[in-house]
Amino acid sequence: MTSAAAPEWQVAAWLNASSPVSLARLRGKVVALYAFQMLCPACVSHAIPQAKQVRQIFPRDEVEVLGLHTVFEHHAAMGSAALEAFIHEYRIDFPVGIDQPSGQGPLPLTMQAYQLRGTPTLLLFDRQGVLRHTLLGAVHDMQVGALIAGLAARTTTAPPHQSHGNDGACRI
Amino acid sequence: MTSAAAPEWQVAAWLNASSPVSLARLRGKVVALYAFQMLCPACVSHAIPQAKQVRQIFPRDEVEVLGLHTVFEHHAAMGSAALEAFIHEYRIDFPVGIDQPSGQGPLPLTMQAYQLRGTPTLLLFDRQGVLRHTLLGAVHDMQVGALIAGLAARTTTAPPHQSHGNDGACRI
Amino acid sequence: MTSAAAPEWQVAAWLNASSPVSLARLRGKVVALYAFQMLCPACVSHAIPQAKQVRQIFPRDEVEVLGLHTVFEHHAAMGSAALEAFIHEYRIDFPVGIDQPSGQGPLPLTMQAYQLRGTPTLLLFDRQGVLRHTLLGAVHDMQVGALIAGLAARTTTAPPHQSHGNDGACRI
Amino acid sequence: MTSAAAPEWQVAAWLNASSPVSLARLRGKVVALYAFQMLCPACVSHAIPQAKQVRQIFPRDEVEVLGLHTVFEHHAAMGSAALEAFIHEYRIDFPVGIDQPSGQGPLPLTMQAYQLRGTPTLLLFDRQGVLRHTLLGAVHDMQVGALIAGLAARTTTAPPHQSHGNDGACRI
Repeated sequence: MTSAAAPEWQVAAWLNASSPVSLARLRGKVVALYAFQMLCPACVSHAIPQAKQVRQIFPRDEVEVLGLHTVFEHHAAMGSAALEAFIHEYRIDFPVGIDQPSGQGPLPLTMQAYQLRGTPTLLLFDRQGVLRHTLLGAVHDMQVGALIAGLAARTTTAPPHQSHGNDGACRI
Repeated sequence: MTSAAAPEWQVAAWLNASSPVSLARLRGKVVALYAFQMLCPACVSHAIPQAKQVRQIFPRDEVEVLGLHTVFEHHAAMGSAALEAFIHEYRIDFPVGIDQPSGQGPLPLTMQAYQLRGTPTLLLFDRQGVLRHTLLGAVHDMQVGALIAGLAARTTTAPPHQSHGNDGACRI
Repeated sequence: MTSAAAPEWQVAAWLNASSPVSLARLRGKVVALYAFQMLCPACVSHAIPQAKQVRQIFPRDEVEVLGLHTVFEHHAAMGSAALEAFIHEYRIDFPVGIDQPSGQGPLPLTMQAYQLRGTPTLLLFDRQGVLRHTLLGAVHDMQVGALIAGLAARTTTAPPHQSHGNDGACRI
Repeated sequence: MTSAAAPEWQVAAWLNASSPVSLARLRGKVVALYAFQMLCPACVSHAIPQAKQVRQIFPRDEVEVLGLHTVFEHHAAMGSAALEAFIHEYRIDFPVGIDQPSGQGPLPLTMQAYQLRGTPTLLLFDRQGVLRHTLLGAVHDMQVGALIAGLAARTTTAPPHQSHGNDGACRI
């Protein structure tokens, strides 16, 4: 990980979004992106409710919450129609992107580019679009609140912080 | 509700079952049948874990736990391939039937025959195959334990009990 | 354990009781007696809420819920004034007995007579006053519901059942 | 609330502390002080576990976690011996002060000085000893994580921030 902005997300379509979503367009905000699968139990029981809580606690002009549907198994069961039903039933109102399927294997393209190891994974980007934390699995709500607030507290002119905090997460 | 055995379930296919499942074949056991949909949040957060708990607490030669996938919305998202993925991811090991779709409307046939009003619904049958309780929504684990044990305690020769206990549930 | 009625409780005083409480006076009802200490964390987080739930689910003319304050440590911190404050703050409305202190050691008399190993312990008595289950620690709500309903389903004339169910509990 | 350091705590004794504890001695650290009573249900179920979580997530050289036993009712039941038993049973390892009783009424002195309205109340002080947040009742873990991290992110030389964030808390 470097201080350079992270690679742009490769998304087949965005749901719940009235205009195009991209890392570049979110420059200036902290971004909490939850990579999930709709049939992943910990995503459903933990990550989705936590994402909603982030949406509720942090002001939207400071912190953007996004979902990224990174399907790497059971592809037939998690197509876009299924995802739309899921988003409706679970009352998800933040934008959710569909990670672009690869033509050559089960892993979609953003998942590959970010070398994600599974779902749920929470990716936290700072105001300059630099990836600061990659957290696989269930992370405690307090930890997530602390990490996001820590990123939000940095002024946009500060030089990017190069090391990771001790946040107890699994990383690649 | 009468003391007659309930109508047989109309099921397109059973998953997790090595031999045919029917109400008639389960005569002599109490049956706890959970009508659910894989994209129904309360089914996932409450009914499925409760069904597993019933499986763990009651001996299988006394009480049978079954799922019935009663899809009445988002049909395209909840086909049999999706259900198989769901069963795998949620580590469900009891038999799950697919309620037979009707050719003429969204409600499947067993759901119609039993006049179910939504999901999750827990149907409790006594040892004679008589439907004794129909419980819509989230029911407290203690209540479920009490109702099942109450049915299990009745000897098979006892005349069917005609009234319902005060179990606080919504009924049709 | 035998089919004889259990020994009478030795209680210094009853709180929340308008008339004397005894095992003999409760003949004909199932009794769920929670032995607890007000400074025992699992008693507070698990047993007390569960006792309230039993009170809510089972009709009072069938099942009696009682507390028994079996102080075996920190005696100075858990006197009767402290217990009264605890009962008030935790909104406990079922009768709570104070297990009679022994003059000769930390264990109070009922705790000794029943050879209890710690708190919380749930003691379940059948309608004849026979102790049927002694469950140390946190027991699942569904299990408790099943055990109580199982005892309640026995008619008062049935011969006492001599063996224990497979309820997974720790026993002395 | 001003940008001046908050009034010093008036404490009869500190438990779990090897050396004297004071706001002045903690200058340079963020301080999370939980005002609680050992017989207050929400303190036990929510505030104490949350305080432990803060202790686990934030490094101790940055954030200090303290308890303050602010007894304003049931005084006889919550003396220092009872508090010691409570601290032992609940495995509390951070310092806990006993708010100095007033000779003239139920409210202890620090509680009066800070005009606290009840328990639990979380008081958050910045690195300069300025009280920044007073949160009565159960506060979401994520919110607490965000507020503490926000205070921790401010450099010690920054001028105190005069306004409150929108944290949804009840204040005096």
